[in-house]
Amino acid sequence: LKEEEILKTLNHLNQLTKPPGSLGRLEDLAKQLSGITEELIPDLSKKAVVVMAGDHGVCEEGVSAFPQEVTPQMVYNFLDGGAAINVLARQAGAEVFCVDIGVKEPLQHPNLISKKVKPGTNNMAKQAAMSKDEAIQAILVGVQVVEDLVEKGYSVIATGEMGIGNTTASAAILSALTEIDIEHAVGRGTGINDEQWKHKQRVIEQALQMNQPDRKDALDVLTKVGGLEIAGMVGVILGAAKFRVPVIIDGFISSSAALIAYNLCSTSVQYMIPSHLSQEQGHQFMLQEMGLTPMLYLDMRLGEGTGAALCFQLVDAALNIMSEMATFQSAGVSGANEEMTNS
Amino acid sequence: LKEEEILKTLNHLNQLTKPPGSLGRLEDLAKQLSGITEELIPDLSKKAVVVMAGDHGVCEEGVSAFPQEVTPQMVYNFLDGGAAINVLARQAGAEVFCVDIGVKEPLQHPNLISKKVKPGTNNMAKQAAMSKDEAIQAILVGVQVVEDLVEKGYSVIATGEMGIGNTTASAAILSALTEIDIEHAVGRGTGINDEQWKHKQRVIEQALQMNQPDRKDALDVLTKVGGLEIAGMVGVILGAAKFRVPVIIDGFISSSAALIAYNLCSTSVQYMIPSHLSQEQGHQFMLQEMGLTPMLYLDMRLGEGTGAALCFQLVDAALNIMSEMATFQSAGVSGANEEMTNS
Repeated sequence: LKEEEILKTLNHLNQLTKPPGSLGRLEDLAKQLSGITEELIPDLSKKAVVVMAGDHGVCEEGVSAFPQEVTPQMVYNFLDGGAAINVLARQAGAEVFCVDIGVKEPLQHPNLISKKVKPGTNNMAKQAAMSKDEAIQAILVGVQVVEDLVEKGYSVIATGEMGIGNTTASAAILSALTEIDIEHAVGRGTGINDEQWKHKQRVIEQALQMNQPDRKDALDVLTKVGGLEIAGMVGVILGAAKFRVPVIIDGFISSSAALIAYNLCSTSVQYMIPSHLSQEQGHQFMLQEMGLTPMLYLDMRLGEGTGAALCFQLVDAALNIMSEMATFQSAGVSGANEEMTNS
Repeated sequence: LKEEEILKTLNHLNQLTKPPGSLGRLEDLAKQLSGITEELIPDLSKKAVVVMAGDHGVCEEGVSAFPQEVTPQMVYNFLDGGAAINVLARQAGAEVFCVDIGVKEPLQHPNLISKKVKPGTNNMAKQAAMSKDEAIQAILVGVQVVEDLVEKGYSVIATGEMGIGNTTASAAILSALTEIDIEHAVGRGTGINDEQWKHKQRVIEQALQMNQPDRKDALDVLTKVGGLEIAGMVGVILGAAKFRVPVIIDGFISSSAALIAYNLCSTSVQYMIPSHLSQEQGHQFMLQEMGLTPMLYLDMRLGEGTGAALCFQLVDAALNIMSEMATFQSAGVSGANEEMTNS
């Protein structure tokens, strides 16, 4: 990021009528945004949520409480504006773009971005989820979607996804890329009971044993135990870094994509804005791995980009602080006694 | 709160196209809001931030990095719309109401709510901060402000404050009301260094020794080591409970008022919505004491109501979810396999 812009931003923040640093993470955000965009106060009013949808062959193993048909049903719900992400995006003044990158069923809708790489992944408990070529193709879909959005003037992007079974893939990615054991990596997804949770752990263990993904090769991990929508989000994140656009990372599944992106290209993390901490227990380890700290603690576990969408207002707040607050000088407010402070 | 409304809300939430409970704290908020207002989806569009301003005699002891003249200067900044709380309230569609409940200097401004009980508290290191009558009078100012706002149609209120020296009073309240030792109760306020922080602890210790506030009597604690703006916020919170209006509690100083209100009337906590966790280290203990968990973790330590203002959007989100989301039935989405879930 541009150090010079960051220093200019810090200098401006320290002139505003508040103790230096007292707006905490909002000030960090303001600095990050200007470092990314090379503007003191960028215009980030055109906001997009990209929802990548894909199915998971591992659903055959009975890892989710919801049937696989819910993936296409929810895609139509997104396109009709009735899902949680639509509500929260609308509130934030953001548009939802839904991409079919790997839904099993054929889908048709005028507003759907149809980029199906493959009709669902293979069952990773029995073989690799996809081929390396398919993984790369799905990443490139994500990069392309960002390029198209940037051309249309969108300036901040939130990641979202839909895919029954995708907490299983995300937990497998977390286990494969880090030292976290399976018991801590795996959560209850949409809400399975104890017995099903144990079963889900065994399925993931089997998938890892079968595929032997290479911890040092994030593309290999993505290929063998990932998902098409996860690969698409990897592309969205790398695309955001490429086009210097801030990208808000949603919860557990989005963060598994972020972790892949980070392992492929560590500087991509500088373009990421963490949003909420998911109730899915593995999420904290993903964020820790990348040195990211969430801002919203809402015990959410819905995905779709819902936590990220709530974060748009924090981005707006950081920018509004920069553009609207009075300075000590303009408001005639006295500063701190320097001898009493650390700064 | 009305159990019947809460159950109706839960029933509606469980029909929406998402796994039951997956929106976490937003669902809790929706339930709380309907329990408070006795409406399934209350209209909380008229939002108010009440900023109570007062001075602290204990500033004589040199506890703050900022001079006392900053209190009136910031009041004018609020009234002119240039402070952080103005920016964040504007973004949330909320109005800021600034109350002079105890600023030392005379203040005049057409938009100021002038309710001065006393021109600043006494130096609590030497005597009681105020008399019991003054404390009660200041509480009643807060109740009256809420009554006036409710009459004007405001339906959700955030607490805010301004008063150089008021983290000292708040830390004293925390120490006086709980078992927390002074070292953990006292923070760095607007940003004092190590030496000044130790000094601040000694001043608070002296104030507690001098005044011997009765732990079992929150009004006694407020009177002896509190502040006029803190008493005013106690009134705002009790008034919110009285008029069945949700009240969003800001950070450390607002929470010291909440803790007094809770000790005076424990059911008032049901009307409180916690917002952010302040960087001020004592804040977490106050919230724990009331069984409240913050939703925003932004390392903020500015006060004014800034953390509470950011929480308005979460209130909006909870209500928008209730009113705008499709149901499983309306969207034709399949439900969970009940045998696999806990619910």
